[in-house]
Amino acid sequence: MTTEIRSTPKPRTKPQPRPVQQPSPMPFQRYQPFQPIVLSDRTWPAKSVTKAPRWLSTDLRDGNQALIDPMTPGRKRKLFDLLVQMGYKEIEVGFPSASQTDFDFVRSLIESDAIPDDVTISVLTQARPDLIDRTAQSLIGAKRGTIHLYNAVAELFRRVVFHMDEQECKQLAKNGTRWVIDAAEKYLRDVEFGYEYSPEIFTQTPTEFAVEVCNGVIDVWQPDADREIILNLPATVEMSTPNTYADQIEYFCRNIDSRDSVCVSLHTHNDRGTAVAATEFGLMAGADRVEGCLFGHGERTGNVDLVTLGMNLYTQGIDPKIDFSRLDEVRRTVEYCTGMPVPARQPYSGDLVYTAFSGSHQDAIKKGLEDLETKAERERVGIHEVAWQAPYLPVDPHDVGRTYEAVIRVNSQSGKGGMAYLMKADHSLVLPRRLQMEFSRVVQQHSDSEGGEVTSEQLWQIFSDEYLNRTEPLKGKGFTLETTEDGRATIKARISSHGVEKVITGEGNGPVSAFVDALGNVGVRLRVLDYNEHALTAGGDATAAAYVECEIENGDIEVHWGVGIDPDITTASLKAVMSAVNRHRREAYAVAM
Amino acid sequence: MTTEIRSTPKPRTKPQPRPVQQPSPMPFQRYQPFQPIVLSDRTWPAKSVTKAPRWLSTDLRDGNQALIDPMTPGRKRKLFDLLVQMGYKEIEVGFPSASQTDFDFVRSLIESDAIPDDVTISVLTQARPDLIDRTAQSLIGAKRGTIHLYNAVAELFRRVVFHMDEQECKQLAKNGTRWVIDAAEKYLRDVEFGYEYSPEIFTQTPTEFAVEVCNGVIDVWQPDADREIILNLPATVEMSTPNTYADQIEYFCRNIDSRDSVCVSLHTHNDRGTAVAATEFGLMAGADRVEGCLFGHGERTGNVDLVTLGMNLYTQGIDPKIDFSRLDEVRRTVEYCTGMPVPARQPYSGDLVYTAFSGSHQDAIKKGLEDLETKAERERVGIHEVAWQAPYLPVDPHDVGRTYEAVIRVNSQSGKGGMAYLMKADHSLVLPRRLQMEFSRVVQQHSDSEGGEVTSEQLWQIFSDEYLNRTEPLKGKGFTLETTEDGRATIKARISSHGVEKVITGEGNGPVSAFVDALGNVGVRLRVLDYNEHALTAGGDATAAAYVECEIENGDIEVHWGVGIDPDITTASLKAVMSAVNRHRREAYAVAM
Repeated sequence: MTTEIRSTPKPRTKPQPRPVQQPSPMPFQRYQPFQPIVLSDRTWPAKSVTKAPRWLSTDLRDGNQALIDPMTPGRKRKLFDLLVQMGYKEIEVGFPSASQTDFDFVRSLIESDAIPDDVTISVLTQARPDLIDRTAQSLIGAKRGTIHLYNAVAELFRRVVFHMDEQECKQLAKNGTRWVIDAAEKYLRDVEFGYEYSPEIFTQTPTEFAVEVCNGVIDVWQPDADREIILNLPATVEMSTPNTYADQIEYFCRNIDSRDSVCVSLHTHNDRGTAVAATEFGLMAGADRVEGCLFGHGERTGNVDLVTLGMNLYTQGIDPKIDFSRLDEVRRTVEYCTGMPVPARQPYSGDLVYTAFSGSHQDAIKKGLEDLETKAERERVGIHEVAWQAPYLPVDPHDVGRTYEAVIRVNSQSGKGGMAYLMKADHSLVLPRRLQMEFSRVVQQHSDSEGGEVTSEQLWQIFSDEYLNRTEPLKGKGFTLETTEDGRATIKARISSHGVEKVITGEGNGPVSAFVDALGNVGVRLRVLDYNEHALTAGGDATAAAYVECEIENGDIEVHWGVGIDPDITTASLKAVMSAVNRHRREAYAVAM
Repeated sequence: MTTEIRSTPKPRTKPQPRPVQQPSPMPFQRYQPFQPIVLSDRTWPAKSVTKAPRWLSTDLRDGNQALIDPMTPGRKRKLFDLLVQMGYKEIEVGFPSASQTDFDFVRSLIESDAIPDDVTISVLTQARPDLIDRTAQSLIGAKRGTIHLYNAVAELFRRVVFHMDEQECKQLAKNGTRWVIDAAEKYLRDVEFGYEYSPEIFTQTPTEFAVEVCNGVIDVWQPDADREIILNLPATVEMSTPNTYADQIEYFCRNIDSRDSVCVSLHTHNDRGTAVAATEFGLMAGADRVEGCLFGHGERTGNVDLVTLGMNLYTQGIDPKIDFSRLDEVRRTVEYCTGMPVPARQPYSGDLVYTAFSGSHQDAIKKGLEDLETKAERERVGIHEVAWQAPYLPVDPHDVGRTYEAVIRVNSQSGKGGMAYLMKADHSLVLPRRLQMEFSRVVQQHSDSEGGEVTSEQLWQIFSDEYLNRTEPLKGKGFTLETTEDGRATIKARISSHGVEKVITGEGNGPVSAFVDALGNVGVRLRVLDYNEHALTAGGDATAAAYVECEIENGDIEVHWGVGIDPDITTASLKAVMSAVNRHRREAYAVAM
């Protein structure tokens, strides 16, 4: 591999013309490209996220409204308790003016004392005095509560849905804010009261105008150091590549009034599959807060996935301030509450995301884990304390409550690494490398013909059938071994072959060589190339596994591994030799007896 | 709403302390932040993608190797045919040196003439002479074939898995390239032959070193205008925010030799949920080609989703050069072949992504579609030809073979817009706006108590029970109507009430007012506030629907809508009046008879 290759004459294969892709039959001309704001002095691409944002979970509002089966009050409560337990401090719990169910749920949270003192619930409302009044009433008695007001400022919505011009929209936002203040004064004097405003849909609104509306709202709310305003900037529909959202956010952060008293909040959806990126870039662009749902529930393609965002921080050494250490449990609870499964490839939480099927991936993971073990021993720390770095696994599955056993799964595409890993992890057998290669061919024959994944149990069955359970032509029936002071060993072994028993004898410098000699005396000629033995378990009554690689003559010469397992280490090694012979002599024949 | 609100004294609610998020119990300190290459003069954030890249589908290789049940040859062939039909011109079909199944599949494609002349199949191999030899043999007889070679250049892999230093890695890449050239000359002189090289894992390798290795490979391959080399830059594991991948790609494109003869290719995985963004930014940074899988199959979290990427281009008015017009069919085929479902929220293809449950979303979509209809009529084009712009729908579902019927689904969170839409789309009823509001309360009561989604059929049942099927206290049994020359109408109507039949008479300026007069004569006092009628179907035997809004006196005054459907327009309107009366008089009482 280290031979120097120099430039050589051009090869004589035919050149390959570049591929020509054909026009699609779809009417793409109907669509217009998104027109982003121009921000040539953007700074966000050189930044990175260095701390957790403030999180708001809208699982009970945006998430719930997009379920085929909206949650019953009981399931909502279960999810609320989960969110609290995970560490979310801001939770949007419903749209009480739009649904009696939501109103009743908010009341039940407050009246049953379900909300810890440091958790803020928030409720959404449209900008109409009667709706705001009803919304405020839903919060009576809460320790901390936020009203979240929105109105449409995007051109399409103004024109087609609401028939309003820009100034009417801006005025409605200001009026709505005033109505919220009034309703809060009327009903919520005892509540630690917060206010959130969303210019809907922020991304489809000229950013200058969104800033103008929000500055109007600020003018009414009058934020200061003790009285923040949350300005939430929804990408309710994802319309463009996520860099354009970041540009909009950076522009907004630069131009909004009273920046120090404003909490700039991101609210992204995943229509183009880039909500996570848009949110991360929004934070790099200066935002403070993120709204989303666990596992990305929400209208259509869903809100941004709070689990992915949090775990993305985690893998960079940043505390997400949310507890994902029992992610499977979180997942089961959310699946129960929402009635929707978490997809198998969902980052961090899906069934298959810590699983490697490919042989080369499995091999690399196995070596990576061994390297971490060595490092942990050297540093005298536990395997789960050592700095994480492993091929193909951006996070230690253990940190989110998954186990290594699930990491490696074997199918017909898998190689020896995965099988070796499973044989070690589940059956304590440390297969020598060349035996791994031999066994992987055996497994591949099996899975190519049977198809499908090979479970750890099936792997053990294939291994047993191939290496441990063969009894023809040779089966051991006991032996006596005499070893002299000078190290010569004499064996008398009782073997059976096709029902005929015989005692064979031989000599060597140990039991294996003596047994090989004895076999040679009855016409079974072999040579041991490699030999390995290890205990399967700790303690005095340990079972041993022995592996021998034998060159066997029978006409031509073949090389086979044999494996023996026995409480007695000598018996294990003799069994291993017989296993190799039996694997070779598939066609039953009589030993010369 | 247009009243001017000015700044006012600060309100007197309690200020809300900012939330304090607690540290998580997870050992985040084990992880190190990704160290990106510094590219302060990056240009990609100001760019956008303006044409489709070259696509390679690796569904049959990277996608297949990560399935719980790898595809049978029959399913692989079905998927191959689908990819060809959709327009993919480069298809990676297997790893023939690693699996006999893969080798046989490549042979069967070639030998059964399954590959159109303008489609290139490619096969993956590690850098070992015997494996490369076997790989080349798999391609014998193909018209166009590409060998895709990879070796590990990332530090972690070199150190832990392969025990190689940087120069050994580089030499192996060059040697591998030479071996590929040699094997191709030996076996593939009749094949239009291409070469692809991947420095694995590109993103975890210092970018300068990745460029150095690739320049070494270029030196061996000697690309020119007729002899390109594909340099594929895998984010086999996604390790950081996607801007860092873009920086790496821009750096690579600037520094690679023979740039004009190099096809820079992207290969991303979705471990952080940002593979789509990383790929789009990679294209903005200068790359030419994209590798991925339909619906994002592939190891762990999957490869980037080719459907999302293509449709993201489409919504910006760019021809993806791939046919997604029958996306549901594509989806069904892929689900059959892979045995894995496409998640409900998968962008563009999931079950729920064109569905709006929220009332305000539904209302906006309905108005948006009506606006498009008007626009289409004005421009004298079909509704599916007019430039697309609709609230909450980044793409016309019709363009990908979905229908509008599935767009709007109703649950307890839904408002009048969705119901009105379904009543119109599925039952041809154009409900007046105030009737929509009334009906939505009826539906909400139903879905709040029953829970779950309300299907279009259920909606019809609720509507019928509420408006059409009531027969107490009033049921019409026929009428005679006389209209004089001066427009005065006299009605004699036979009605039954709780089994008692009576003929009532009245006069007015039309049948409705005459009937109202007749009802007044028997003690049922009402006033018609609004009236609407339309044909349900075209033609002379059209059925009509009539809607009346009535103010009804019965102690206090209440307003109710009534609806009547009948082939005779007069009967329909009288039925509507009786419907309103019957809805009001829930407590059955006797009409004065």
